[in-house]
Amino acid sequence: MQKHTIAFIGAGNVATHLAHALQNIGHTIVAVCTRTATSAQHLATSLGTGVAVVSQVQKLPPAELYIIAASDDAIEHIAHQLPICSTNSLVVHTSGSIPIEALSGVGQYYGVLYPLQTFSKERQLNMGNIPYFVEGNTPEVEQLLFTLARSLSPLVQQLCSEDRARLHLSAVFACNFTNHLYDLAAQIVESSGVPPEWLHPLIQETAAKIQRLSPHQAQTGPARRGDQKVIAKHLEMLSLSPQWQELYQTLSKSIYTSYHQ
Amino acid sequence: MQKHTIAFIGAGNVATHLAHALQNIGHTIVAVCTRTATSAQHLATSLGTGVAVVSQVQKLPPAELYIIAASDDAIEHIAHQLPICSTNSLVVHTSGSIPIEALSGVGQYYGVLYPLQTFSKERQLNMGNIPYFVEGNTPEVEQLLFTLARSLSPLVQQLCSEDRARLHLSAVFACNFTNHLYDLAAQIVESSGVPPEWLHPLIQETAAKIQRLSPHQAQTGPARRGDQKVIAKHLEMLSLSPQWQELYQTLSKSIYTSYHQ
Repeated sequence: MQKHTIAFIGAGNVATHLAHALQNIGHTIVAVCTRTATSAQHLATSLGTGVAVVSQVQKLPPAELYIIAASDDAIEHIAHQLPICSTNSLVVHTSGSIPIEALSGVGQYYGVLYPLQTFSKERQLNMGNIPYFVEGNTPEVEQLLFTLARSLSPLVQQLCSEDRARLHLSAVFACNFTNHLYDLAAQIVESSGVPPEWLHPLIQETAAKIQRLSPHQAQTGPARRGDQKVIAKHLEMLSLSPQWQELYQTLSKSIYTSYHQ
Repeated sequence: MQKHTIAFIGAGNVATHLAHALQNIGHTIVAVCTRTATSAQHLATSLGTGVAVVSQVQKLPPAELYIIAASDDAIEHIAHQLPICSTNSLVVHTSGSIPIEALSGVGQYYGVLYPLQTFSKERQLNMGNIPYFVEGNTPEVEQLLFTLARSLSPLVQQLCSEDRARLHLSAVFACNFTNHLYDLAAQIVESSGVPPEWLHPLIQETAAKIQRLSPHQAQTGPARRGDQKVIAKHLEMLSLSPQWQELYQTLSKSIYTSYHQ
């Protein structure tokens, strides 16, 4: 596979993991840019010598590939400040919810490289089993991004911006909302005097189970059974917290109608 | 540790896993009872020879320990049909939400042995890392159940019925509701033409992450950031499904107020 020179705009969780993964397979990270140079410096240092640190997008050195791994709101603005020197440079962002059009007018070639995963700097990740979704403004860009992603993971698919937005929405359910339920569960457990870590085996097994059964088949619990007695008791236990009560009711109703209609 | 003769009433997921685990550490399963003998027969056969199969509680052979692993609604009725021959027999149930009092009047000794896990017959489980919660009608029963559970797992705690009910409520959040979110996420992903299995790395990592960070620290996503633009777009994407829209809104509001108030 062709090796590229790559500049990163952003030094957050996605940038950090992606920069290391791309460097590991032979690409050259030439620069990292963030407004406050500290986090860029940190990422650059972890990548080794020869990585420039800049605090202004306009001062980025030339690169074949610019990867914008910044907050959704900043992507379009950043892209239009890039010093695209070579007509062959490719600009991509890594966001699930920003359409490819946000990059239109930024040089000749642009696209999207969206990794479907939750990243945190503290955790090592197996970058080789993450699904990547690519989109390009030309078939050639799409092919290049596809090949690049395939060198990181076997799970790569071309996806238009609309479908990617839907995928991102599903990740909000599977990751963000799920994590919030862990948070509430931990708070409830603590009120019983039980260490919240004791929920971990249950949480791990719930997540592991769906590798064998579909979540629809794996569903259990009072709402699935339509056990109104337990549901009423739980709602009563939550009476001091109307918001949790509402959550319980909405989720139970949704489960119930999934199986009883 | 003292070995016991044990009879199971129920042959579902909990009974199956618990019977095997207890047999593995040297206890003797003398009988399995279910109304339709087929599932009892199946469990008895998997346990080996010498396990009686009965379809009426009244016909159970004598045992030192009767474990009622049946549906919540049936526990009290089953318990009061047991042929308690020995004054030393101990009767327990395995339910999170049924108070110990459901067994009062059933012989001299009774209690609860509640494993906090989601069981399915298809999946092997490491029974050694499951938390068990015990309750007894006397200190001696409590001690016996504690010792029994400790021979299965290091995670054992005495818990009164009220706290156990709260723990069960938290398991509904951590397991049942979470699984339903997996189900919705899979349905949304499929509508994008992406295989639902491609969500697995995200789901696994979300569950794994909280072993290092508390879920409260691990929270990410538009609601955590208060990103109204993305939230509004997601709600619009869900406009064809008012129920999912309501879920999205309720969960987002709950996350938002957890961090912004």
